Amino acid sequence: IMRPDDANIAGNVHGGTILKMIEEAGAIISTRHCNSQAGEPCVAALARVERTDFLSPMCIGEVANVSAEITYTSRHSVEVQVNVMSENILTGAKKLTNKATLWYVPLSLKNVNKVLEVPPIQYTRKEQEDEGKKRYEEQKLDRLETKQRNGDVIFPIINPEPHTVGYSQSSLIHLVGPSDCTLLGFVHGGVTMKLMDEVAGIVAPRHCKTNIVTASVDAINFHEKIKKGCVITISGRMTFTSNKSMEIEVFVDADPFVDEPRERYRAVSAFFTYVSLSKEGKHLPVPQLLTETEDEKRRFEEGKGRYLQTKAKRQAQMQQA
Amino acid sequence: IMRPDDANIAGNVHGGTILKMIEEAGAIISTRHCNSQAGEPCVAALARVERTDFLSPMCIGEVANVSAEITYTSRHSVEVQVNVMSENILTGAKKLTNKATLWYVPLSLKNVNKVLEVPPIQYTRKEQEDEGKKRYEEQKLDRLETKQRNGDVIFPIINPEPHTVGYSQSSLIHLVGPSDCTLLGFVHGGVTMKLMDEVAGIVAPRHCKTNIVTASVDAINFHEKIKKGCVITISGRMTFTSNKSMEIEVFVDADPFVDEPRERYRAVSAFFTYVSLSKEGKHLPVPQLLTETEDEKRRFEEGKGRYLQTKAKRQAQMQQA
Amino acid sequence: IMRPDDANIAGNVHGGTILKMIEEAGAIISTRHCNSQAGEPCVAALARVERTDFLSPMCIGEVANVSAEITYTSRHSVEVQVNVMSENILTGAKKLTNKATLWYVPLSLKNVNKVLEVPPIQYTRKEQEDEGKKRYEEQKLDRLETKQRNGDVIFPIINPEPHTVGYSQSSLIHLVGPSDCTLLGFVHGGVTMKLMDEVAGIVAPRHCKTNIVTASVDAINFHEKIKKGCVITISGRMTFTSNKSMEIEVFVDADPFVDEPRERYRAVSAFFTYVSLSKEGKHLPVPQLLTETEDEKRRFEEGKGRYLQTKAKRQAQMQQA
Repeated sequence: IMRPDDANIAGNVHGGTILKMIEEAGAIISTRHCNSQAGEPCVAALARVERTDFLSPMCIGEVANVSAEITYTSRHSVEVQVNVMSENILTGAKKLTNKATLWYVPLSLKNVNKVLEVPPIQYTRKEQEDEGKKRYEEQKLDRLETKQRNGDVIFPIINPEPHTVGYSQSSLIHLVGPSDCTLLGFVHGGVTMKLMDEVAGIVAPRHCKTNIVTASVDAINFHEKIKKGCVITISGRMTFTSNKSMEIEVFVDADPFVDEPRERYRAVSAFFTYVSLSKEGKHLPVPQLLTETEDEKRRFEEGKGRYLQTKAKRQAQMQQA
Repeated sequence: IMRPDDANIAGNVHGGTILKMIEEAGAIISTRHCNSQAGEPCVAALARVERTDFLSPMCIGEVANVSAEITYTSRHSVEVQVNVMSENILTGAKKLTNKATLWYVPLSLKNVNKVLEVPPIQYTRKEQEDEGKKRYEEQKLDRLETKQRNGDVIFPIINPEPHTVGYSQSSLIHLVGPSDCTLLGFVHGGVTMKLMDEVAGIVAPRHCKTNIVTASVDAINFHEKIKKGCVITISGRMTFTSNKSMEIEVFVDADPFVDEPRERYRAVSAFFTYVSLSKEGKHLPVPQLLTETEDEKRRFEEGKGRYLQTKAKRQAQMQQA
Repeated sequence: IMRPDDANIAGNVHGGTILKMIEEAGAIISTRHCNSQAGEPCVAALARVERTDFLSPMCIGEVANVSAEITYTSRHSVEVQVNVMSENILTGAKKLTNKATLWYVPLSLKNVNKVLEVPPIQYTRKEQEDEGKKRYEEQKLDRLETKQRNGDVIFPIINPEPHTVGYSQSSLIHLVGPSDCTLLGFVHGGVTMKLMDEVAGIVAPRHCKTNIVTASVDAINFHEKIKKGCVITISGRMTFTSNKSMEIEVFVDADPFVDEPRERYRAVSAFFTYVSLSKEGKHLPVPQLLTETEDEKRRFEEGKGRYLQTKAKRQAQMQQA
C-alpha cells in the first residue's frame, strides 16, 4: 500500500499547497482501497485532518516526496498517514516537512448520500489495531464537539485600530468551478484547505507587517460537503498571539444560491498558526493582539489554552525522545 | 448587498487579471440577487462592461480588495458597480485601482435561452432610480449600435515594416475547456476579457518595444455566448497612437466546429488602451503608427476621435472636481 | 489551413509546456478538418508524436508563434506539422524553437470507440502524397512494435548509490480532473506529455546535479486513452548517458480504480533526452550512469544504439545541407 517517492515539483510552497498535495495523496490511496473489492464504486471524501506541524519550510525548486499509508480502517472510515519530505535535487539533501493524519469516508458514486463499507486492512500487530481504534474514537468525539459549536460571522469594521482583531481580519470569495471538484461534484478537501491557508496568510502579515510561514494547522473537520456552483466565503480573524506566533481562526461558509433552496451554511472551520521569520530564518517577535469585545477576550483565552496545551505536549514528547 | 473586503492575493497583476476578478465579483452578486426570490433558478451572464480606467498599477504581493454593489435593475438586467482597491499588507497603504460598471442578464438554468425577470431593488432616493434608468437606456443604444458594426478579419502580413499595423498585429487561439465555463456551459465573461488583454498586451510592446500597462478598456458588449468546446480566436491590431498611448482593437471569434452546424461568428470586440512606462514609472513616448490602407487611416481617425472625446470628458470632470 | 501567428505568452518555458502547446494546436486543426464535412461530429485524439528536437531554449517573456498545417490524411488519421518560433517582442528577434509531426484519429462524439473517416486533403504535387503515405506506413509499423514491448514497473530502491539508475529514478501521481480532459472525457495528449517532461526533469538533475534543458523527445505512441477520474503514475528512469546528454525512459500507467472493473495499464511510454547547460549556455559534462543489473546494462546499450543512430542521422543531414 506504500507509495514512496511520489514526487511533485514544488513551486513557491505555501502551507496550503502542501496541504493540498497531502489531501490528494490521501484521497487517491483511500479511494483505491475502498474500491479494491467488488462492490459499488465509490469515491473517498475527506472527513477530517488531524493537527499537523510544518517542521521545515519548503523552497522553490525542491521536490516534494509524498508517501501515504493506510493505518486504520473502521466500518465506514479510513485513516491515512501521509509524510512529506522535501528534497533538494541538486544537493540531494532531504528533510521531513510534515506528517499528517487524514480520515476519509467512501461515498457511493451512484448515490452521493450513501456511505459504503470499508474493506478491513490486516494489522501486523494487535496493538496497531487497538491504537487505531483509540484514535478513531477520539476523533469521532472531537468531530461531534465542533459540530455543535455555533457559527460566528465576521463583519467588516470601519477604520479599525492597528493590532486589533478588526484590523487584520480578511475574507475571500470563491466560485466553485469544475476543476475544484471530485468526480462526485464536491469540492476537494485539499482545495478548501489551500484557500483557508491563503486567507490566513493575508490576516497574519496584516497584523505583524513582516514575512510569515505556516507553523501548524489544528484538526480540521469537514462536516458538510460543498457542491459545484456554490459560492464559498473564506473568512479569517486573529484569535491569539504569543511572543512569536499568531493563531488565526478560519471559517468556510457555503452559499448554494443556485439550483437549491438552501441557506448559507458553515462547511468547515479551523485554527492556523503562523510565525514570522527574518531573512536569515530567525523567529521575529509578533505584536500583541489588542482585544476589545468580550468575545475577542474569550477567544484569546481559548487560544492561549490551545497554545499552552500544545507547548506542554511538545515538551513531553521531547523528554520522551 | 455590499461585500466589502473580499480579498484575493494578486500575483503579477495584468489588467486582464483585474478584469477577471471584477467580472467574478459581479457574476456572484448578480446571480445571488436574481435567485433571491422563489422562482426558476438562474445564472447571471455578463452582457456588457462599461468603459473602465486603470488608475494605478497593482504589484505582486499586494492584496486586491474587491467590493460590489447592485446599483440598478431593469426588468431583465442588473447593473453592478465594482470597486477594486489595492492594499500593500506590509505598509497598510491602499489605493483605488479601478471602478467598473457591469450589466448582467439572468439566464434560466433549465433553458439557457430563456431570460428571466430580475427582482427590483429598493432605491434610497428617487434620483438614483432615474439616473440608473438613464444609464440603462444609454448602454442599450450602444449595444444595438456595435451589434450592427460589421466584423473585420485580420490577415497575416508577410514581412511587414516596423510601426505599421501589420507589424504588431497578433492573434491567439484557445480551446474552451470546462474550467473556463459557468454552470450553463458558457465561457465566463472574465475569462474572455483576460484573453483579450493578453493579446493586446502582445500587440502593444511589439509596436513600442518597451514595457506597457493597461490604461483603460472601452465599453465591451457580449453579444453572443461562447459554448464549451468552441475554439476562440482572439485577434488584436493597433488602431491609433497618441504621443503617449496606443489604442488596440481586439476581436473574439468563436468557431463551434464540433457538435453544431454553425459558422464562425464574432462574439465580442473592444478597444484597449495601453501606455508605456519607464522603470521609474514615467510615461515614455510611443512611436507613431504608420497607416497604409484606407481602412487603417479611417480607423486611426476614429481612434483619434475616441481619444479626444475621452480627454475632453476627463478635463470636464477635473474642472467639476 | 495555415494558422500562422497564433501567439501565446510563454512563462517559464519547459519542454513540456511547448509540447502541450504543440498538441493543442494540432488537436484544434485536425478536429476542425475532420468536422469540415457534414457527418457525425468528432474530436481528434492524439495517436502519436514523431521524434522532435528542441533547437533553442525559449525564455520567460518571449512569445511563442505556433503554426500548424495538415500535411497528410489517410482513411482514418491526420498528419499535422506544427512549427514553434520564439519571438522576443522587444527586440523582434525570432528563432525556430521546434518542429513536430503529430498523428490524430477522429473519434465520434456520440460513441467514443468509433473511429470516423477523415476527409481527404488536396496535394499540390503527387510526391507530397507519396511521401506522406511513406511516413504513414513507417509510423504504423513503429506503433505496432512499441505496443508489443512489455511493460516494466519501477520499484523504489532503498539507499541507492549516487549515479546508479535507482538513485535518480522518480515517479509522480496525478488524479485526472476535468480540466485535463477533452470533450470526450479523455486526457489531452499534451497534458500527458507535460507531466512526462516534468518527471524526466526531476530524474535528470537528480543524476547530474546541474541545470538541465530538454534536448529532444523520441517518438511517443498513445496506445490507450486515459479516462477522467483515473489516477496516473508517471515514472522515469535514466537509461543512458553520453558525455553531454542523458536519456530518460518515462512510463505512464493509468489506474481506473473507480467505476470500472479494470486493471492498471500502460498508456504511454517514451524517451526524453536532456542536456546540462552552464549559466553561459555551454554544455556541461554529465556523470556516467552506473548500471548494475542485466536489464540496466541492456537498456544502456539500447540507449547507446539510439544515440549513435540519431548522431549519424544528424551528420548525414548536415552533409546534405
